[in-house]
Amino acid sequence: MSDEIAENGTANGDVPEIELIIKASTIDGRRKGACLFCQEYFMDLYLLAELKTISLKVTTVDMQKPPPDFRTNFEATHPPILIDNGLAILENEKIERHIMKSVPGGHNLFVQDKEVASLIENLYSKLKLVLVRKDEQKSAALRAHLGRIDALLERRGTRFLTGDTMCCFDCELMPRLQHIRVAGKYFVDFEIPTSFRALWRYMFHMYQLDAFTQSCPADQDIINHYKLQQALKMKKHEELETPTFTTSIPIDFNDLNNSDQ
Amino acid sequence: MSDEIAENGTANGDVPEIELIIKASTIDGRRKGACLFCQEYFMDLYLLAELKTISLKVTTVDMQKPPPDFRTNFEATHPPILIDNGLAILENEKIERHIMKSVPGGHNLFVQDKEVASLIENLYSKLKLVLVRKDEQKSAALRAHLGRIDALLERRGTRFLTGDTMCCFDCELMPRLQHIRVAGKYFVDFEIPTSFRALWRYMFHMYQLDAFTQSCPADQDIINHYKLQQALKMKKHEELETPTFTTSIPIDFNDLNNSDQ
Repeated sequence: MSDEIAENGTANGDVPEIELIIKASTIDGRRKGACLFCQEYFMDLYLLAELKTISLKVTTVDMQKPPPDFRTNFEATHPPILIDNGLAILENEKIERHIMKSVPGGHNLFVQDKEVASLIENLYSKLKLVLVRKDEQKSAALRAHLGRIDALLERRGTRFLTGDTMCCFDCELMPRLQHIRVAGKYFVDFEIPTSFRALWRYMFHMYQLDAFTQSCPADQDIINHYKLQQALKMKKHEELETPTFTTSIPIDFNDLNNSDQ
Repeated sequence: MSDEIAENGTANGDVPEIELIIKASTIDGRRKGACLFCQEYFMDLYLLAELKTISLKVTTVDMQKPPPDFRTNFEATHPPILIDNGLAILENEKIERHIMKSVPGGHNLFVQDKEVASLIENLYSKLKLVLVRKDEQKSAALRAHLGRIDALLERRGTRFLTGDTMCCFDCELMPRLQHIRVAGKYFVDFEIPTSFRALWRYMFHMYQLDAFTQSCPADQDIINHYKLQQALKMKKHEELETPTFTTSIPIDFNDLNNSDQ
């Protein structure tokens, strides 16, 4: 297992150590990968480590060649995987619940805010549609959705979504905004309009924060993540087909024979 | 090693057995792959097996998971590999020379015809350019080249390139025509004009021949071959780059701070 340890919190044994296993880059197994849930929980836990309620250990696993002990312990389970006091939590929803209910300080991250919750909920699926369909209609829908987030930030006037400190919604939204920015630009020349000033101010603040920059994959890893998805999808298509052999002739058989010697 | 044996020739020991190892499909390891040189030598040897000067054994190897004995014997060498009397020949030019000089009947396939040799020489590279550039200029160059082959066939009035029996040039040309037809259509909607009547007549005759149909990969395997090439090329691009992180802001920093609370 390639260990990338981001130790935080106090060095003494007063706070529990939480380990988060994240997917490595598909380009370089030593780098962080472009896994949205991995980054989201990385950010959640990083904030708690900064508050010194836990100490955090982050381990990257190259899923193209997982180490034998990872295979033995987790078989086909993909990161993120959270390990707390010898207990491994494998499902995203359970990881989220565990951070909220059982990790010291975690409950502070989980703010109740229905407006924000429903506003950011379907943003990412709009990026996926843009990348698959590549038409202006889908790009316009993504842009409109970003416009609604910009309007909320403008109206609330807060630094983050629910106030001046970060919460779970920020850890959910910002990795997705980064994918939209990098992959949208690369694949379909989509750009977040500069007129969305409150949204850019929000991103500007995020880019200053260690919780984001320490957990963020490289642009190349984000781009490669979608390229591999597309290549696998393309490959799948042929795999499902019954093999066919093009041996028909587009002109009339008798005509051909007549002109034959 | 997944054995696909196409036995031909006499069953008794009068004729030598030649084994040709070819690449398997990247979709289904039991199918033939879309390797042009594999198909070319398969056709050469199939013709000799039909003439009963040799008996032919064709073995497909799945290069995504080559069997241990293949790895031991040939390490990183890719098919086609020709095995004659315990001697393995690994390089394309040497395989061609061996068929011509040492395989019984082989010399009959190698007709001297400078006009045909130079005419078919650069055809395939024009398909590659069409697939990479995807512009009409490259398609026009490929179409013009096919037109020159059509004109030669028309003028000569023979069933095959150098006469009424097949030779090495036909075994070289036809697999490439099939790739042009299938991949050209799929990736860039390129079609061989129906006005090239002599060329279609030539292909029509080929489609009747066991030497071609037994050695020909499925359309899906041809398509997948180029998709994988493109995906690898795309991936390579990111692998060579130094990782970068987009964290700049497209609007003025001070402006953002002024509008901040």
